[in-house]
Amino acid sequence: MRIILDAMGGDNAPDAIILGAVRAANEFAAELVLVGRGAEILEALKRLNIATLPKGMEVANAEDVVDMHDDPSTVIRRRRDSSMVVGLQMLAAKSGDAFISAGSTGALLSASSLIVKRIPGIRRAALAPVIPTAEGRCVLIDSGATVECKPEFLAQFACMGSLFAKSSLGIANPRVGLLNIGDEDNKGTPVQRAAYGLLQELDRTGLIHFTGNIEARAVPLGGADVVVSDGFSGNVLLKSIEGTAQFMSQQLKKIFTKNLLTKLGAVFCKSGLEELKAMSDYRTVGGTPLLGISKPVIKAHGSSDDLAVFHAVRQAIDAVQHDLSGTIRDQINQMSITKEQSNVE
Amino acid sequence: MRIILDAMGGDNAPDAIILGAVRAANEFAAELVLVGRGAEILEALKRLNIATLPKGMEVANAEDVVDMHDDPSTVIRRRRDSSMVVGLQMLAAKSGDAFISAGSTGALLSASSLIVKRIPGIRRAALAPVIPTAEGRCVLIDSGATVECKPEFLAQFACMGSLFAKSSLGIANPRVGLLNIGDEDNKGTPVQRAAYGLLQELDRTGLIHFTGNIEARAVPLGGADVVVSDGFSGNVLLKSIEGTAQFMSQQLKKIFTKNLLTKLGAVFCKSGLEELKAMSDYRTVGGTPLLGISKPVIKAHGSSDDLAVFHAVRQAIDAVQHDLSGTIRDQINQMSITKEQSNVE
Repeated sequence: MRIILDAMGGDNAPDAIILGAVRAANEFAAELVLVGRGAEILEALKRLNIATLPKGMEVANAEDVVDMHDDPSTVIRRRRDSSMVVGLQMLAAKSGDAFISAGSTGALLSASSLIVKRIPGIRRAALAPVIPTAEGRCVLIDSGATVECKPEFLAQFACMGSLFAKSSLGIANPRVGLLNIGDEDNKGTPVQRAAYGLLQELDRTGLIHFTGNIEARAVPLGGADVVVSDGFSGNVLLKSIEGTAQFMSQQLKKIFTKNLLTKLGAVFCKSGLEELKAMSDYRTVGGTPLLGISKPVIKAHGSSDDLAVFHAVRQAIDAVQHDLSGTIRDQINQMSITKEQSNVE
Repeated sequence: MRIILDAMGGDNAPDAIILGAVRAANEFAAELVLVGRGAEILEALKRLNIATLPKGMEVANAEDVVDMHDDPSTVIRRRRDSSMVVGLQMLAAKSGDAFISAGSTGALLSASSLIVKRIPGIRRAALAPVIPTAEGRCVLIDSGATVECKPEFLAQFACMGSLFAKSSLGIANPRVGLLNIGDEDNKGTPVQRAAYGLLQELDRTGLIHFTGNIEARAVPLGGADVVVSDGFSGNVLLKSIEGTAQFMSQQLKKIFTKNLLTKLGAVFCKSGLEELKAMSDYRTVGGTPLLGISKPVIKAHGSSDDLAVFHAVRQAIDAVQHDLSGTIRDQINQMSITKEQSNVE
């Protein structure tokens, strides 16, 4: 197995990418390819006191870098020599099994769709982050790749999210909820109302286990294993959870550092507080897979450090081992069959 | 001043409504009218050991009650004798200055628009809850009244929310942010992109102080004083903040009750933890005003207790004193003038 990494993407590139990759190369039985400016990578290796690359790790040169301000739609034309575009071309050409980048989300989305292509039959790709809940973890799909959705897109997201929850969270029969503003089936915009019917049909055919609408309040409390949403609302959901967790953490810090006694209180609660912190540490979750692309593409957090890169590699290996893209391809065929059958009836 | 209360709406009606109203009647110089089933209200008064109603408080009979399962659009026809419909009719007939209900949001929205009517020129009404942030509080508009929005609706929400923030939060020049999935002006759906331009124009004319897009993550951190959104995303934002706060509180409770030492830690941090709890206590915030209706209508939380009802009354009095509806009416006229002028140019 060969995992390709964009060595130049993200706030801490190339150092964090190199360190995370080296750690992963030492721990996992996978070849790793760092794509980026050769000279900069060599300099960074020297700076990081890495005399030789671990076995199975190599560097592929790409002289340009995608900028956060680049227009995503022009990246594959204007930045054809960038680490992101070259890396994705290697993935498309089967010189690797998965691609990881901490660079611009928009550019990665656009370039992946154009270079690696979507799985035939998949209408739109979706970002599917795994988020911590009171009951464990859940998959949110989509968190911002496709801001405007037709009901059919949401139905495909439900299938892809369900397969991803099975393989990554190990849940045999994930509960799929449709993000909505109320429980009743007539809630939401016409998109949610139509999607509700499609998800019910997918439930009847056994492709997913649809448990109905889910309100945003129930998501962090563990109300579903897969939350299906258009990219706009999904992004709002994800980011308000992150912002509220950050707000509460700030307040807690204030509470615990108020005086000597509260500091002592913090010491008493240390292990619990560390568990809570670890729970919401995005770095150990890995990156966010871009589902619907014909090969595994993983978006690592823009501010990824080496630990986050390491877990993104672990996640990429996992996606290749489970052949998530292949499984999605098979299931989408089943969905189409169902659709044709229902047209015939 | 006369405040009308739906005595039968909400999970704890009529007891919580009566107790909250009695407390408010004793504290504020306002007349209060409880609308509902006379016999039930009298029984409740007996049960609550209230021998006589406070001065300025009275009961108006309404034999029916709006059910949470009623179709909102049919309430004013099928539940014409309900406490909600009768109360709103009193408001429309100038037998009161504001109306408060903890009953069905959908029914209150629909019946208010039909009976009390929107302010002329206002395209849609909006629910504008006040939410706690790291910097104080902010107004979210809309949180679920209008799930599908045109850009012009969002522009009107921005004006109404700004006026509400001035009067209720005492902010002279509130920072108005447009809820979006990125900072750049080309982010979001065509609705957000068009709304962005309209809000810029309102900023130029001095009607609002528009500070650009705001991501959901920045809302709890205090990134804006007024957050403008369609009702769907706004509802997702509000409820994910609530759900995450609840999730974090549950985790904290677990941490503090783990053993004797952590319990001692909780004692040391008591005052801070109580402040944090108070911060996110919706009951002290009051209800959620339904802005755009020609007279003050306030939706109290469905699970309101007497404290929440008391604060909803305080808020209603505040809305009447600041003549929020009148101010919105004046400003909407200015908006129209601006529009006509720009058409002429």
